[in-house]
Amino acid sequence: MNRLEKVDDDILPDAPLEAAGIEIIIDTVVDRNGRRLRCAGGEEIRFERLVVATGSIPMLPPIRGLDKGGVFTVIKEISALRTLKQAAEQANDIVVIGGGYVGVEFADELLAKGKRVTIIDRLDHLLPQALDAEFSAFIEAAITDRGGELRLGTSVTDIEGGDHVEAVLLDNGQRLHCDLVIMAVGFKPNHSIGAKLGIEVSPGHGIKVDEYMRTSSPGIFAVGDCAEQHNCYTGENWPIMLASTAMAQGRLAGSNLYSIKVVKTFQGVLGTFSSKIGGTAVGVSGLTEAQAQRMGLDYVVGRARVPDRHPGTLDDASTIEIKLLFSRFCHTLLGGQIKGGDSVGEMANILAVMIQNEMTDMEIDTLQIGTHPLLTSSPVVYPIISATVDAISNWFGND
Amino acid sequence: MNRLEKVDDDILPDAPLEAAGIEIIIDTVVDRNGRRLRCAGGEEIRFERLVVATGSIPMLPPIRGLDKGGVFTVIKEISALRTLKQAAEQANDIVVIGGGYVGVEFADELLAKGKRVTIIDRLDHLLPQALDAEFSAFIEAAITDRGGELRLGTSVTDIEGGDHVEAVLLDNGQRLHCDLVIMAVGFKPNHSIGAKLGIEVSPGHGIKVDEYMRTSSPGIFAVGDCAEQHNCYTGENWPIMLASTAMAQGRLAGSNLYSIKVVKTFQGVLGTFSSKIGGTAVGVSGLTEAQAQRMGLDYVVGRARVPDRHPGTLDDASTIEIKLLFSRFCHTLLGGQIKGGDSVGEMANILAVMIQNEMTDMEIDTLQIGTHPLLTSSPVVYPIISATVDAISNWFGND
Repeated sequence: MNRLEKVDDDILPDAPLEAAGIEIIIDTVVDRNGRRLRCAGGEEIRFERLVVATGSIPMLPPIRGLDKGGVFTVIKEISALRTLKQAAEQANDIVVIGGGYVGVEFADELLAKGKRVTIIDRLDHLLPQALDAEFSAFIEAAITDRGGELRLGTSVTDIEGGDHVEAVLLDNGQRLHCDLVIMAVGFKPNHSIGAKLGIEVSPGHGIKVDEYMRTSSPGIFAVGDCAEQHNCYTGENWPIMLASTAMAQGRLAGSNLYSIKVVKTFQGVLGTFSSKIGGTAVGVSGLTEAQAQRMGLDYVVGRARVPDRHPGTLDDASTIEIKLLFSRFCHTLLGGQIKGGDSVGEMANILAVMIQNEMTDMEIDTLQIGTHPLLTSSPVVYPIISATVDAISNWFGND
Repeated sequence: MNRLEKVDDDILPDAPLEAAGIEIIIDTVVDRNGRRLRCAGGEEIRFERLVVATGSIPMLPPIRGLDKGGVFTVIKEISALRTLKQAAEQANDIVVIGGGYVGVEFADELLAKGKRVTIIDRLDHLLPQALDAEFSAFIEAAITDRGGELRLGTSVTDIEGGDHVEAVLLDNGQRLHCDLVIMAVGFKPNHSIGAKLGIEVSPGHGIKVDEYMRTSSPGIFAVGDCAEQHNCYTGENWPIMLASTAMAQGRLAGSNLYSIKVVKTFQGVLGTFSSKIGGTAVGVSGLTEAQAQRMGLDYVVGRARVPDRHPGTLDDASTIEIKLLFSRFCHTLLGGQIKGGDSVGEMANILAVMIQNEMTDMEIDTLQIGTHPLLTSSPVVYPIISATVDAISNWFGND
């Protein structure tokens, strides 16, 4: 199995940081006085520049009985994850509340361990924030094909049992027996430190930052999940919480701590992510069709369905399904969704690079890419180009 | 084995062309009279627009004995490939003359069939046109680790034997016993039709075309290997013969047959290709360091060596080695080489998209990409970004 056995196997070691001359202090900030932080442990830390990277914390929906034993949130902290893993190993019937990436990936791991797993989401599809319905369907099939259960379009009202969970009650009156519940309804910025530092916070959205991740107080930056994120197309709040986005912000803040060396050319958050459930990989970059509609962006869709090796009869070939959105009048790529084999992870990044370069349909049409039978789709039907050609043809009234 | 069993398994069927209303005529053009072609079969074909796509033919070095039985060139034609495959299956000791992609990929397939294989190239490394020496070394290891032999920096002067090949004689006096020789020293444009059509040809380089693949005669286009190719950085002749490049040219000519609908923004040939030898994939886009030196381009190098999954202890993780070249003064990406697992195929295409958008180090540094443990490198060390950060640091005197 291509899986880790222990939570500890996933620890990023401190050694490279320490080797780079970084001192690690574990403490809690109490308040700030100018360029000094006072900590709960009594220590005072002076700084020239301060970067806040306090991440996010789990959201909790209004469900009765959340305090029962066997009900877990997903806390990104080693001892909490060890406890959750141990409890999951002893459980048999597991309910996952929330069908986003965290819920779906937990379900995937638990199915692989032979558990009975049910995912409950109040919306009608898995990954509703990330995928259009026809792409959600691939993930739903990857869960149900392996014995997972889905309860979509319904909410949990009560967690029932004595000290320990015994069942969850749905708003449609159904009752599901279970001995473990994983709450994965989303995360919110962990921005409580904002008040202690005296920097502006957009409540519920994160620490206010400009395009260079600078907060309202000179010399103080905020990056990643704790910072307020804005969509790159409309500027609206965009609660994307991705390690890769956080890394881009961290590099930007790090480069520009003392002066703006790296001028930011792509404004706002794009959102690029991939996942693998069972044998099915999905990748997304930019806007889905549902998001474009909600935001009022006019668009044209292009699609392709091709093998990712050539010929497609090779043993490890998978079928790529791809859907691209282009601005109807600017002709720039707005977003894309891909499903297929493992190469989908890097294909999502090709879309990300294209969007950040504001590439048009015509530029993609004449793109010089490389292909190889054992590594990519055929040059005749390279998926991103094929879907672009489909979009071009749809512009002229064929859709 | 992830291989095709029969040559016929690799045929691209005619049906989709016929379904699109395309008539296929197999004949030889004798000459042209205005917008009429006269064919050897006696047929006269009228055209409004003519697209020449006659491809390439094998080059032959000055070796004595090329006419012996058991000596094959690689002809991209089904009956020739069937004959070669049958002969190879019956052979035991096979010499491949030429260490480019065709030679190396033939050797890879033959090793997988349990043959004894020796590759001979007059240059000191395999894939000398495509890779810098340190990346050639990965391919050389992938051949020798599986029992293949290399004779580099030497040439064959004679093919010896009676009617059938029995040995090849090298210019260092060495004699290698063999019962099959595959000539893979390269291809040249098949442009003999140019004279029949009365269009300009650059002898040895191909049919002369402009940026829109238009030949010297109005209404006649040439695309792919038969057309003269120019390097995108210097405009010099650039004998790249890739299906993916040919497809880009075919789409461009097809879109613009009657008027220029798709304005070409990226001038000249980039060159993006990938290959997989044994379990090792390599991908290249743009210039190698050796090419940049020869062309006189000033550059800075960045490198990274990271796993392509995270953590790198996952079962299917491979080590990615990446080398990027940036223009020292323009800061644009000039080229990149990658070695690793199968995702290298699409990572080469990420580089291709970056180069065609003339992306700078700083734009790549702040790129928003997506990552997933089972599909990509860690967001902390995403290879293209890590190598870019290395290049930025090298700019400041650390190289």
